Amino acid sequence: MFFEGSEKKLEIIVNESAPKLRSLDRIFWLGLVAASNADILSSINNEYCDAYLLSESSLFVWDDRIVMLTCGASTLVESACYCIEHLSEQAIAYICYQRKNEYYAHLQATSFTDDVFRLRQFIAGQAYRMGHLDSHHHYIFSTNKDYQASQLDTTNELLMYHISGAVADYLRGEQQSTVQISQMLQLEQLFNGFSIDQYLFSPLGYSINGIRGAEYFTIHITPQENSSYVSVETNIDLSSTPVDVFAELVRLLHPSSCDIIGFNSHIANKPFLNYLCLSHCAMPIEQGFTIHFNHYQQDCSELLNPTLL
Amino acid sequence: MFFEGSEKKLEIIVNESAPKLRSLDRIFWLGLVAASNADILSSINNEYCDAYLLSESSLFVWDDRIVMLTCGASTLVESACYCIEHLSEQAIAYICYQRKNEYYAHLQATSFTDDVFRLRQFIAGQAYRMGHLDSHHHYIFSTNKDYQASQLDTTNELLMYHISGAVADYLRGEQQSTVQISQMLQLEQLFNGFSIDQYLFSPLGYSINGIRGAEYFTIHITPQENSSYVSVETNIDLSSTPVDVFAELVRLLHPSSCDIIGFNSHIANKPFLNYLCLSHCAMPIEQGFTIHFNHYQQDCSELLNPTLL
Repeated sequence: MFFEGSEKKLEIIVNESAPKLRSLDRIFWLGLVAASNADILSSINNEYCDAYLLSESSLFVWDDRIVMLTCGASTLVESACYCIEHLSEQAIAYICYQRKNEYYAHLQATSFTDDVFRLRQFIAGQAYRMGHLDSHHHYIFSTNKDYQASQLDTTNELLMYHISGAVADYLRGEQQSTVQISQMLQLEQLFNGFSIDQYLFSPLGYSINGIRGAEYFTIHITPQENSSYVSVETNIDLSSTPVDVFAELVRLLHPSSCDIIGFNSHIANKPFLNYLCLSHCAMPIEQGFTIHFNHYQQDCSELLNPTLL
Repeated sequence: MFFEGSEKKLEIIVNESAPKLRSLDRIFWLGLVAASNADILSSINNEYCDAYLLSESSLFVWDDRIVMLTCGASTLVESACYCIEHLSEQAIAYICYQRKNEYYAHLQATSFTDDVFRLRQFIAGQAYRMGHLDSHHHYIFSTNKDYQASQLDTTNELLMYHISGAVADYLRGEQQSTVQISQMLQLEQLFNGFSIDQYLFSPLGYSINGIRGAEYFTIHITPQENSSYVSVETNIDLSSTPVDVFAELVRLLHPSSCDIIGFNSHIANKPFLNYLCLSHCAMPIEQGFTIHFNHYQQDCSELLNPTLL
């Protein structure tokens, strides 16, 4: 019953020499997704954005950028290489490739070191690890071209490990419905006015994409006992929402630990009720982003149950 | 500069049908150690015990049991199979095989699951994981034969990650001496009256074995920045020593996190000053051992420095 929910993430921003990305034909996107060993399940779109729900997470496309997340043993680094090859290295303004804390790194097709070696065959960039190897940590590869992000270009990622409580029980139950899950997660209140596209995986697992103008959110849930994982990512400004979105999701899903990764975030250092911030890091890079990594754990000494293997 | 300091550990207890283990010839021990891809560097002995310092940790031999620890990418599970093959399955009273929390599990020759599969080709046993996959955790394989350990058969293991302070700086320095290291660690006070055998590895690393009657202690230090690790293991009754040995070593080496693994331990749940016990577990098994796993972390929110890769 093990599935690696934790994602790799790719963001690519193109410059004016590139075509408008949304004008590229479907063959291009099928090839991009196939490079990661994923498939397109469904899509929604509006004036600014095409949002694809994938067999292994999500792809968002705007005219000047893509954001792609894939989980499991997918090979997202190959989608990065595919993009650079097809669009040309000159058309790339900025690339950020991330790998989040994995449960079973040894089951992945490649290590982050392998991925960086592969990326550097196509484009130059710096690679970092934030966090100790024996604790939660986060890997980032970031190109060093002369690009300058706006301070308003913000992303927040909330990664929750070992969820528990009523919502977690429902997610691990015999039967679920997308309506019930989105109600339990209060998504209409938390992400008001978004068009959504959701999918229930068999036997377990839930994904949702939402778009509102150029804004997006995406949530992926791997509820499996012993290795549960939920990721939430959005580019909305979470410091000005009526509800504290991440605090509310943490309250509902009650993870034993969680990480927040922020790009130009205003909320990365906000404390969570009943959680300790075990470690934190803020790294400004020349391309105009300050990258935050904060690792939290429940404020209690957890009594562990041995797992029979 | 990466070296996996964290050990695998094997304990084998034989029954009366086995020869006295210390009477076995050197060829046997060379073969046992070679199965793990290790070498014997030196040895000491007394009336009860032969203690070998290995290129990758330690081997202790009594008439009725062996304790062997190996680090790096060594294949200790093969030494277990070698023993069972050479001594016969019938001669085995009890085997415990452990893998401690590794920094880079994906660089190991095998996973714990692979090791259990291999062991079960030779002997039946239960396998457990104590601790979450995304935090410190400990793997144990334990045979289920009709053996009964004495409550006095105690072992305590202290595993320290990310050491810092004056001793750590010295250990990472240009030049060290075994005398200076054992003085800085106050080993004469902490383990009084032991015969010792110590070794300094090049470029970095320190090992020491000590024996006193049937008692032993062993310490292995991998001081490398970003992946430092120190293990301390002993079968002396730490609840009745004049100094609190583990607390003193934690004070001297100042790890950012540490684990205690105990077998019939009286000290496993003792709090450390300035450390939080993040999680804990006590598992009684039918063979007369209660196995403790306690995971500690410094009681502060650590400011991380990104590591350039």
